[in-house]
Amino acid sequence: MYQARIKNVLSNMEKMGIRQMLICDFESIYYLTGYYNQPMERLFALYLNADGNHKFFLNKLFPMPDSDIEKIWFTDTDDYVKILAENVDGTCDMGVDKLLPARFLLPLMGHNPECRYILASDCVDDARACKDEAEQALMREVSQINDMAMDAAREFIYEGMTEIELAEFLVGQYQLHGTSAGLPLVAFGKNAADPHHHADGTTLKAGDCIVIDTGSKLQYYNSDMTRTYFCKEVSEEHQKIYNTVLEANLLAESMICPGVPLCELDRAAREHIAAAGYGENFTHRLGHFIGQNVHEQGDVSATSCLIAKPGMIFSIEPGIYIVGDVGVRIEDLVLVTEDGCELLNRLEKELTLVG
Amino acid sequence: MYQARIKNVLSNMEKMGIRQMLICDFESIYYLTGYYNQPMERLFALYLNADGNHKFFLNKLFPMPDSDIEKIWFTDTDDYVKILAENVDGTCDMGVDKLLPARFLLPLMGHNPECRYILASDCVDDARACKDEAEQALMREVSQINDMAMDAAREFIYEGMTEIELAEFLVGQYQLHGTSAGLPLVAFGKNAADPHHHADGTTLKAGDCIVIDTGSKLQYYNSDMTRTYFCKEVSEEHQKIYNTVLEANLLAESMICPGVPLCELDRAAREHIAAAGYGENFTHRLGHFIGQNVHEQGDVSATSCLIAKPGMIFSIEPGIYIVGDVGVRIEDLVLVTEDGCELLNRLEKELTLVG
Repeated sequence: MYQARIKNVLSNMEKMGIRQMLICDFESIYYLTGYYNQPMERLFALYLNADGNHKFFLNKLFPMPDSDIEKIWFTDTDDYVKILAENVDGTCDMGVDKLLPARFLLPLMGHNPECRYILASDCVDDARACKDEAEQALMREVSQINDMAMDAAREFIYEGMTEIELAEFLVGQYQLHGTSAGLPLVAFGKNAADPHHHADGTTLKAGDCIVIDTGSKLQYYNSDMTRTYFCKEVSEEHQKIYNTVLEANLLAESMICPGVPLCELDRAAREHIAAAGYGENFTHRLGHFIGQNVHEQGDVSATSCLIAKPGMIFSIEPGIYIVGDVGVRIEDLVLVTEDGCELLNRLEKELTLVG
Repeated sequence: MYQARIKNVLSNMEKMGIRQMLICDFESIYYLTGYYNQPMERLFALYLNADGNHKFFLNKLFPMPDSDIEKIWFTDTDDYVKILAENVDGTCDMGVDKLLPARFLLPLMGHNPECRYILASDCVDDARACKDEAEQALMREVSQINDMAMDAAREFIYEGMTEIELAEFLVGQYQLHGTSAGLPLVAFGKNAADPHHHADGTTLKAGDCIVIDTGSKLQYYNSDMTRTYFCKEVSEEHQKIYNTVLEANLLAESMICPGVPLCELDRAAREHIAAAGYGENFTHRLGHFIGQNVHEQGDVSATSCLIAKPGMIFSIEPGIYIVGDVGVRIEDLVLVTEDGCELLNRLEKELTLVG
């Protein structure tokens, strides 16, 4: 149990006026209890109550170590939503987290119709947004590994290689460093105009941009960074695009300190890119929070209401995408400190020709 | 668009008395439309209406090819649940699929409070449970590859190797065959008593059981099989356990034909294992449906109400688990045919010593 984290969530629940909450996001459960389980389609929930009578709802298929929290066990063949409904307070508001699927929520509403069900993920997600020291140390370490992997990938690039080859090279780098990773995003040339391109058999040609958006996981915490290189040569137009993205990245990072509204970071980067004539080509938010999940609750966008606080870790990743031609994105993770920010990715960002 | 599949779902909706349904399970959307997207935390939904006015709800970040279905676009900064609510019928029952998360369902209920929200996944899942010919061909092919990978793994096993090493060997086999796979379950000796053990650095010793539960994905369709081997020698007790599991597997498979209640298969296998004195040690259901998802809706368990129908594909995987000692599981995928069943896994199952 992480008592300080649980206390934090209970305090957030009190502010929201709810006394009980059901958490089914396995990352939140790990965050609060140190118990990691991911039972796919099966019910796995942590129930928090302001009176301190917290409970686990657990499938017998997944044994768990001892803990201070009461355990309610069920099997696949039990009516487990009924068991859940009987073990919570059916008369007062029930906070639920955003991931609770309809398969559990609708029958729970049927069993306990007097409850009002309230989306209360923020109680946990706001706590998770500010990383404590143990989490910061992990995020620093996994990001350092990411810098090393990216640096090795940059050196490995050669004309004629395929995206898949480069992506698999990165996976190998993470294995060397003891972290785990899926296949990263690697996009050459016009493929990079799709911010979510999947690496395929496309081969690298001189003049292509090379977008590498990659990360890995260490003890459940993730890194994430993007660098864009060019193969052997770069056109004047692509150079202008690259430098515009780089300036937007540096500008936003220079503004980060406690108290800054995150929408202001997005605005500044977006205005810089628009002033260069590429406003329409920056098609996504500036950044996202990250931790156990690569995309955690909380973003750096025009509509974000969040204010920077020490401990927050998010990405700064402006991009410009020209369909049929090129894509450029430069992404670092940043940690908000007491008086500014710490870049978790320190690999150089100047325009670099490779291959 | 797969018109026959959509028609099937609309017919199931009619039987359930609902005229509109919201589908957010990306596998179901792929199944019905051939459009594959997995936008993580973002809203991505297919809306079906009995009047034929189907709609896609799509984030502009993910471009999609042309289709006959109306597209409603939004961005991350729009109030997309409001857009969704305004584009469906707010006055009559709304079917939703089981995966619709509270983050969308609760605000949708807020916007359209007059709707009754009904868990209607079965309309799609019942259709998905019976594979059509194209799906059967894929499942056959990916399962043949699984037989080959398992066979190669069996030959590769040697005393002193680690679980991770064997698991990674299997991943390499799938790469050779052009399918994709995560790290499979490999468990040596007493680790195998946990049916969900993750492969680790445990080394193989003479007398250990070796449980390999593995599969890969081909064009979004999955294989899944388990074999249990023994390293160099096997005790009399372990031999008895193995043969009990094998008999339960063969017994259940021999019973499969259209019309058989799936709970009967589970009962027969369970009774056979109980008669040998291991009733308490068979801790999970006999099988699960499979297709695009390794664990699809539908199971072969004591509480399953399903009746075998041609086209259904599910696993038959009895097991016996003795904590601190051994685990044995034998799993095949089977396809129900017009007059019996076709085993999709044909690799031999007799007790085999390896290493």
